[in-house]
Amino acid sequence: MPKPICYSTKAFSAASATTPLTPAVIERRQPLADDVQIQILYCGVCHSDLHYARNEWHFTQYPAVPGHEIVGNVTAVGPGVTKFKVGDTVGVGCLVDSCRTCPNCRVGLEQYCDAGMSGGTYGGTEKHLGTPTLGGYSQSIVVTEDFVLRMPANLNLAAAAPLLCAGITTYSPLRHWKVGPGQKVGIVGLGGLGHMGVKFARAFGAHVVLFTTSPGKAADARKLGAHEVVVSTDAAQMAAHAGSFDFILDTVSADHDLNAYFNLLKREGNLVLVGAPEKPLPVASFALIFRRRSFSGSLIGGLPETQEMLDFCGTHNITSDIEMIRMDQINDAYERMLKSDVKYRFVIDMASLA
Amino acid sequence: MPKPICYSTKAFSAASATTPLTPAVIERRQPLADDVQIQILYCGVCHSDLHYARNEWHFTQYPAVPGHEIVGNVTAVGPGVTKFKVGDTVGVGCLVDSCRTCPNCRVGLEQYCDAGMSGGTYGGTEKHLGTPTLGGYSQSIVVTEDFVLRMPANLNLAAAAPLLCAGITTYSPLRHWKVGPGQKVGIVGLGGLGHMGVKFARAFGAHVVLFTTSPGKAADARKLGAHEVVVSTDAAQMAAHAGSFDFILDTVSADHDLNAYFNLLKREGNLVLVGAPEKPLPVASFALIFRRRSFSGSLIGGLPETQEMLDFCGTHNITSDIEMIRMDQINDAYERMLKSDVKYRFVIDMASLA
Repeated sequence: MPKPICYSTKAFSAASATTPLTPAVIERRQPLADDVQIQILYCGVCHSDLHYARNEWHFTQYPAVPGHEIVGNVTAVGPGVTKFKVGDTVGVGCLVDSCRTCPNCRVGLEQYCDAGMSGGTYGGTEKHLGTPTLGGYSQSIVVTEDFVLRMPANLNLAAAAPLLCAGITTYSPLRHWKVGPGQKVGIVGLGGLGHMGVKFARAFGAHVVLFTTSPGKAADARKLGAHEVVVSTDAAQMAAHAGSFDFILDTVSADHDLNAYFNLLKREGNLVLVGAPEKPLPVASFALIFRRRSFSGSLIGGLPETQEMLDFCGTHNITSDIEMIRMDQINDAYERMLKSDVKYRFVIDMASLA
Repeated sequence: MPKPICYSTKAFSAASATTPLTPAVIERRQPLADDVQIQILYCGVCHSDLHYARNEWHFTQYPAVPGHEIVGNVTAVGPGVTKFKVGDTVGVGCLVDSCRTCPNCRVGLEQYCDAGMSGGTYGGTEKHLGTPTLGGYSQSIVVTEDFVLRMPANLNLAAAAPLLCAGITTYSPLRHWKVGPGQKVGIVGLGGLGHMGVKFARAFGAHVVLFTTSPGKAADARKLGAHEVVVSTDAAQMAAHAGSFDFILDTVSADHDLNAYFNLLKREGNLVLVGAPEKPLPVASFALIFRRRSFSGSLIGGLPETQEMLDFCGTHNITSDIEMIRMDQINDAYERMLKSDVKYRFVIDMASLA
């Protein structure tokens, strides 16, 4: 197979783990038969972007272009494309491809592809070019139509960008473990993921309790949909909820003590981790053995479920709370993100890159 | 309520965490209205007995009488007893009572009683006397009939004693997580629990793989029912099974690396711990997040399920592989147990106490 023709597009990239992101020009393939070319209007800023730019997961290939909460307009389609046309408003999340043949891909759970994350929007492999995939901090992207999502027309597009990662990452486990009315559900952490978790758990009809180390976040948490707020560093507040939760969604990627949360679960309750702390987490076996509790993980969502989530958000008018930034503010935004100084997701206005 | 009249019975007890078990005379209540008095014929030796005798769980009250794999004959019943009569062959496991009113007790999951393990066969509270409960290393015991189990007549009674703890501890999670035909199931460790896990998983129709650090156990494991044996210290053998297990039952209570086992699970596979390592276990979050895996705990079983398990063992002629010892060999047996020098459960012939 000959390599496809490429075109140039502006981007922001990191040249190494220790240097800031700077303007760059990158190559994208011209749309192939089943490809959609997208003018990126907005791109959300995920904590994974920072991990990747700084090689904190030890697989970054430089120059690195992060960004996997991408929304924009279709500017061209290949001749085989059936689902999209020029002018459509679309989204791209954490995946731009997968093996498509393994048992997980065949049931639409491409995030658990047996071939791993080779189809990652950044840090994966651009199979047509044999180069590392480059993410959404750029003016345009070309993606096979099966990995392009339709954005609901009624949503503010910038505020909808974070749905593509923060949204689906919290929606998927809440759906998979059937969170709903009559259940008491905890959300740990009120960041980009956590604030979406609160919104979804509330929309699904659960009684929602937000756990935070910052008492100052209580009013905000209630405004976002939490029925109760627990300051997790207050042992008495924690003890008052012992053995009472059906489900806890843990969105914290900093090191933290899970055992305090296991003890809040009912019999057969489940704590699901979607943040990814760097170091292994110590789990006290007794906390699981008593009451037959479970500790699980969940990773973003597959393409069908991501579309389902976007449609749900359209119906229920759910978006992320965002702070818009210019592309050249990205390095400051990373520093502020590390201090949790964002309510609740930065979104890059890609017009600022022109 | 006046305290019931007591009688004396011979036992073996530990006077402190650091002294061997020695002969003793203990007090039991005379049977009350709903009580069954049992002449103990055999008592299995569980690793928990050793933990308790040596105060390794930090709640032992001395003098301590371990033993919760009890089988024997009914020698007296209170006037309110309806399910048992003198001469019946019965069993008593890890529980002699529970609160009986909490949501868990009401559905027959007394092992997850909201009041905790106050009804433990040893280390709990004898509510009529206000003293610590004393276990099965003794000539007789008195138990409320609701916590007495009927032993299948066709089983070797000594070999059936370990079913009351090792049996139900492995049967319950395999049933709860619906292990059966078409599934690939791992059992970690071939000790008292593990060898029962192999027998049950095989009886339930699963493809059974035994994980052991001891290559010498392979032939035995196959004889007990394992289809395959994996030496867990052999990285190549482990890698060959990556991502292929539906369920893994981990019976090891020594410190060990769980993450190696998580990586063997399929999408949505579950590793269930029934051993209870003393120290918290480090869990690599990525091992759970990728493939949406779960790590759970399970504790013995409730009374209805324990009876179901005994009946299943009667129907399928399943018992433990045992080595019979005299009561005065218990301290040596503990030392041998620590070296895994037992195939696969010590059972005390209680006639040796007379």
